[in-house]
Amino acid sequence: MAKTKVGIVGLGLMGGSLSLALQETSKDYYFIGFDHNQKHCTEAKKLGIADEISDSLDRLQECDIIFLSIPVDGIISIIQRLDNLSPHTTVIDLGSTKEKISLSIPEHTRANFVTAHPMTGTEKFGPTSALQNLYKNKVVVLCDMDKSGEHQKALATKLFTSIGMKIVPMNAKEHDRHAAFISHMPHALSYALANSVLEQEDAPSIIALAGGGFRDMSRIAKSNPSMWEDIFRQNRTNLLESIHCLQVELKKCEKMVENSEWENLNEWMGEANKLHDIL
Amino acid sequence: MAKTKVGIVGLGLMGGSLSLALQETSKDYYFIGFDHNQKHCTEAKKLGIADEISDSLDRLQECDIIFLSIPVDGIISIIQRLDNLSPHTTVIDLGSTKEKISLSIPEHTRANFVTAHPMTGTEKFGPTSALQNLYKNKVVVLCDMDKSGEHQKALATKLFTSIGMKIVPMNAKEHDRHAAFISHMPHALSYALANSVLEQEDAPSIIALAGGGFRDMSRIAKSNPSMWEDIFRQNRTNLLESIHCLQVELKKCEKMVENSEWENLNEWMGEANKLHDIL
Repeated sequence: MAKTKVGIVGLGLMGGSLSLALQETSKDYYFIGFDHNQKHCTEAKKLGIADEISDSLDRLQECDIIFLSIPVDGIISIIQRLDNLSPHTTVIDLGSTKEKISLSIPEHTRANFVTAHPMTGTEKFGPTSALQNLYKNKVVVLCDMDKSGEHQKALATKLFTSIGMKIVPMNAKEHDRHAAFISHMPHALSYALANSVLEQEDAPSIIALAGGGFRDMSRIAKSNPSMWEDIFRQNRTNLLESIHCLQVELKKCEKMVENSEWENLNEWMGEANKLHDIL
Repeated sequence: MAKTKVGIVGLGLMGGSLSLALQETSKDYYFIGFDHNQKHCTEAKKLGIADEISDSLDRLQECDIIFLSIPVDGIISIIQRLDNLSPHTTVIDLGSTKEKISLSIPEHTRANFVTAHPMTGTEKFGPTSALQNLYKNKVVVLCDMDKSGEHQKALATKLFTSIGMKIVPMNAKEHDRHAAFISHMPHALSYALANSVLEQEDAPSIIALAGGGFRDMSRIAKSNPSMWEDIFRQNRTNLLESIHCLQVELKKCEKMVENSEWENLNEWMGEANKLHDIL
C-alpha cells in the first residue's frame, strides 16, 4: 500500500514536533517538507522530520494531508496559492489566530481546510527545537468546523486524537478574543517585563536575583519576534482590548500600593489566587 | 557531643525545606520549631521538619542558630523580642526585603544577625510544601555583611554552602531595588494578569486555551497574599518605581500595536530576546 503523503509547510518547532509525533503513531506516513529556510530544510532531513524536501507547489498539492505550520501572515499567503486541491486533500493550519485565516480561505477550497490552534509550544524555534511529545495531553482548538468538509473534519479529529490531543471546537471570532487574553497579551506582557528589567538592571544582578518567578514570567519574551509580530497584527483589536484590561488591573495595584491600602491589596491578591481552582 | 540546636521560626515552605536540606548534610542538628499556626506545628513534627515544637522565647534563644522564615513584617517584630542572645548565637532571617529588616536590628544584637535572601521558592506554602532540594544550586544574597559578627558571617557562609547555595554579598538598599524589578514587580504583574483574565474569561475557556506561556506567567499569582502584602509594604518605593517602568514599556507596545508600527514592534521584541543571552 502506498504511504499517506503528509506535507509540512514550515519545519520549525510546531511542524517538526508534529512529524515526530505522527511517526510515533504509524509507519505509514511519508513526510514532504517545505521551508524557505535552507538550513532548516537540511536539519529537518537530518533529524528525520522530513523524508523529502521540496519547493514545488505541485508536489505539495499531491499530498493527502498538508499542515501549515508557519507564521500566520504566511499561512494566509499560501492558502491563496493552494488552488489545485483534490476534494480529498485535507489542509490544516496551526496558526495562533483564527478569524482572519478562516475568512481568507477561498470559497472553492473552503471544505479542504481545517483551522486549528494547538495550545502548546515553547519559546524555541527551528527543527532542532522539535519535541516528540509537544502535543501530548494538550488541547487543540478547531475553529469554524461547520465550514470544513466531512472527510476533512473526521481526518483532522483522528490525526489530533492519535497524537494524544484533546479537541475543543470553537467559533474563530470567539477563539481570537479568548486567545488574546490567555495567550497573546501575556506574550506582550512578558516582552514588556524583559525590556523594563534589561533597561534597569545589569546582567550580574539579573543572574543573581532571578528566581523561578522571574524566569517563568520572562521565558516567553525569548519568543520569535517575526512570529509574534504577525499574531499581534492579525489579532490587533482583541490584543489592544486585553492590554487595556491588564493596564486597568495593574493601575489598581499601583494605586493601592501608593495609598498604602494594604487590606484592599491583600483582597485583590486573594482574588487572583482563585486561578488556583481552575489551573 | 551535644547536637547543634537550630530554631526555625516559621515552619512553611522556606523553613521546612531548610530543615530537610540541613538534615541531609548532617545528623548533628536538633530542630526546634516555632509557628503560631498549630496545624503547621503538628504537620512539621509529623514530617520530621522539627524534632520539638516550642512557643517559648527562652527556649528559642537557647539555640545555636535561629532561622526566621516568616513574612517580613513578622521578622521585624520578632527581631525586637530576641534580646537575650549569647555572643555566639547566629540569627539568620530569610526575608525577601532587606533594608527595613537590616535597619530594624538593635545595636546591641546587630552582630548576631545575618540578613539573607535565598533566591528560590514556589507558589506553595505550609510544611507539606517543603522540598529537600529547594535551595540546591540556588543563589542566596547576604546583605550588609560588614554589620554581622565574624563568627556569624563564617557560620552562615558554611551553612548555606553546605546545602549547595551560591553566596552573593550585596548592600541591603541595593538588594531591595534589584529585588523590586526582578522579583516583586513580576509578582504584582502576575496578580494583575490573573485578575484581568479571571474577570474576562470563564473557567472552561481558561482551561482550554491555557498553554505553557499563560501557566508560567500566572503561576506566582497563586502566592500567599499576606506574605506579599508585607513585601510590597516594606519595598513600597522601589516597587512603585518598577511598576512605573513596566507600565512605560507596556504603553510603548500598546502604542506600536495601535499605530500599526510593526517594524518598531518587531525591534522592541528583539530587544527583549536579549534576555536569552543572560538567562
